[in-house]
Amino acid sequence: MTALWQCQGVTSASTAGAVRQGSLRELNLAVVLRRIAAADRPPSRAGIAAGTGLTRATVSAVVDDLIAGRLVAEAEPAPRTGAGRPARGLVLASDGPAGLGLEVNVDYLAACVVDLTGTVRHHLVRRADLRPVSPADALERLAALAAEARAAAVRDGLTLAGATLAVPGLVDSGGLVRLAPNLGWRDVDVPALLAGHPLAEPVDGIPPLVVDNEANLAALGELHAGPPGSTSFLHITGEIGIGAGIVLDGVLYRGARGWSGEIGHIPVQPQGRPCRCGGQGCLERYAGQEAVLAAAGLAGADLPADTAATRLADLAGAGDPATLAALADAGTALGVAVAGVVNLLDLDTVVLGGGYAPLAPWLRPPVVAEIARRVLTAAWSPVTVRPAALGARSAAVGGAASVVRRVVDQPVGWLARSG
Amino acid sequence: MTALWQCQGVTSASTAGAVRQGSLRELNLAVVLRRIAAADRPPSRAGIAAGTGLTRATVSAVVDDLIAGRLVAEAEPAPRTGAGRPARGLVLASDGPAGLGLEVNVDYLAACVVDLTGTVRHHLVRRADLRPVSPADALERLAALAAEARAAAVRDGLTLAGATLAVPGLVDSGGLVRLAPNLGWRDVDVPALLAGHPLAEPVDGIPPLVVDNEANLAALGELHAGPPGSTSFLHITGEIGIGAGIVLDGVLYRGARGWSGEIGHIPVQPQGRPCRCGGQGCLERYAGQEAVLAAAGLAGADLPADTAATRLADLAGAGDPATLAALADAGTALGVAVAGVVNLLDLDTVVLGGGYAPLAPWLRPPVVAEIARRVLTAAWSPVTVRPAALGARSAAVGGAASVVRRVVDQPVGWLARSG
Repeated sequence: MTALWQCQGVTSASTAGAVRQGSLRELNLAVVLRRIAAADRPPSRAGIAAGTGLTRATVSAVVDDLIAGRLVAEAEPAPRTGAGRPARGLVLASDGPAGLGLEVNVDYLAACVVDLTGTVRHHLVRRADLRPVSPADALERLAALAAEARAAAVRDGLTLAGATLAVPGLVDSGGLVRLAPNLGWRDVDVPALLAGHPLAEPVDGIPPLVVDNEANLAALGELHAGPPGSTSFLHITGEIGIGAGIVLDGVLYRGARGWSGEIGHIPVQPQGRPCRCGGQGCLERYAGQEAVLAAAGLAGADLPADTAATRLADLAGAGDPATLAALADAGTALGVAVAGVVNLLDLDTVVLGGGYAPLAPWLRPPVVAEIARRVLTAAWSPVTVRPAALGARSAAVGGAASVVRRVVDQPVGWLARSG
Repeated sequence: MTALWQCQGVTSASTAGAVRQGSLRELNLAVVLRRIAAADRPPSRAGIAAGTGLTRATVSAVVDDLIAGRLVAEAEPAPRTGAGRPARGLVLASDGPAGLGLEVNVDYLAACVVDLTGTVRHHLVRRADLRPVSPADALERLAALAAEARAAAVRDGLTLAGATLAVPGLVDSGGLVRLAPNLGWRDVDVPALLAGHPLAEPVDGIPPLVVDNEANLAALGELHAGPPGSTSFLHITGEIGIGAGIVLDGVLYRGARGWSGEIGHIPVQPQGRPCRCGGQGCLERYAGQEAVLAAAGLAGADLPADTAATRLADLAGAGDPATLAALADAGTALGVAVAGVVNLLDLDTVVLGGGYAPLAPWLRPPVVAEIARRVLTAAWSPVTVRPAALGARSAAVGGAASVVRRVVDQPVGWLARSG
């Protein structure tokens, strides 16, 4: 069986041989690659040498390896600004490794390809109500979509360096989904169900598929695509379930067992509506999509999550009173929960993501009002509440971006595989 | 004016001269001292050399400096177990630097001295209702108590290496107390009010007094005194106000501006009782000491916080129905807030501290019940709820311990000052 990602087109057979775990060369590869990735303008070899303290000869050798390994490319020559030949700047390669981000959600499957420059190259979505579908069947369909995405990547000359799957639930180490209440999954062993499939075949000992919580990956998607400098925030994914990803100084906070971010089950009316989690008065029962649709008079319309958000936004934009009231109530409930979180964690940015992004014009004012009213420090330090840069599909992008980030952080792994 | 802490009794004049910022020696001092601090049994010089990879000569020279600087002492000789003279183990000195922990709270002042071994050597408390007292007067009284504590430390041969003041409110960098609602403080500039006082005179450029949030320092006190291995937890200080300190992997989480932990203002009944913060239905209005006393029929008794907790514990222990009902209700409200926090942060340990510690037998069951009912992951991963190791006074201990920890982490600062 062909591995879903494989190595191709690496021209320098010597690359991998030159790289050894733990070596100085490994460190230099990472330092130079990170320098190129972080630069505002394509740096020259000489500029990298000056900035890192490495010799020009070392930088040149490292850059040659990075180019041979399709991690780096030479930019188009800069316009001449003085005498002599302008130095050619270095950029991340847009035709080398890429990340595959996958998502199983309540009413869609998604597969997304992100290249090393961070560009989303392909984004495939299949709408389907996955609640009545068995986990095995859902994963079978996902694998077919993943194969389509891989074919599209290969046509672009890209090579998949790994895949990350987003699931709206609690994921244990090893890819066991303990509980995804809105999908109806319990103790679903994703790698076992995918056994024999290319998605589950390790390549050179690297686990091909990482399974992670959707809200966590959506927050990473926002970190990837959001405004520069925004490295600490609470990202809320509002769909049928409501999850949160907490990013602190550019790092996802995962909690004691990786199960942080269950903001949808923060009690906002402790004696209120029963929740399918067994609790009562959870935020999800007041600000989840089903609650908003019901309050807007659209109960039972059974719309896909993104369609529902668009539909609500259309109705609200047209001034429909029931929809406006429903969004105001949902925003107030969301604001109560967010105010509690900000009191506890002292975060200065809250991002409305997933299905909340298109509804931000109506959700934001009540959230801001509850923060102003309930956060002890609100008078001294404003909290920014803004829609996510990526809409409802940021989990797949975040998953793909996390693969790409691993390659940039540890290029030696990729180079060894591609040798 | 004499500085409140000063250096005395350092016998080796060469110690400070041998230490330079950023030097290898500085690193070696820190490595050896940490080794001694972390050891289960007093290590020998040879053992330290083997464990650190330093030469025996280097370890001996470093240990000599640490002994001369009163950071390390030789333990009593171990009993002979074989031939030859037993090596003498090394321990942290109990007669060298010490930390001073201070606290201004609603109804008491406290000053606490902790030596380098972590032992609480003195703990002075003055009860007084500080709400009607001006911040300047309160700090004047605190300074007098600090001088008493210092005199007691000096009688023991200890030297204060710094002080940390705990305040039940929002502290800005530079020691400005933005708001301490239950004290009635707003924009109180502690260093300015203490100007000219020994507490505020820098010694060798080291700011003598650090001002910090009480709940943060109480959590550090628990980290210092709690069960070994307990390095990630939520520590809740229940007094008239309710604050929390979040410790993650042994490090206090402070938030974007250092104002994390305001668990008392998490809404538990969004349309409920008005709070003095301007919000409504805050946890504090249901589980703060005033609410519990009122529900127990003790409103207006105007007891000091610790007396109130003891009184409630006595009544509950005697089976007083009103007190039992009051504690059950408070525990349920606390459990609702804690369940939200655990859903969000996935913490596996919750510590009931401050005035909650003596009430833990009655508060714990409803907190555990709400966690079981409302935390999505409760079925797979138990959450430990336990009383704090230190009772109501852990903030002062945590403040003193944080001074001592700074000395152990960066011994060169102390050695330079004590030279």
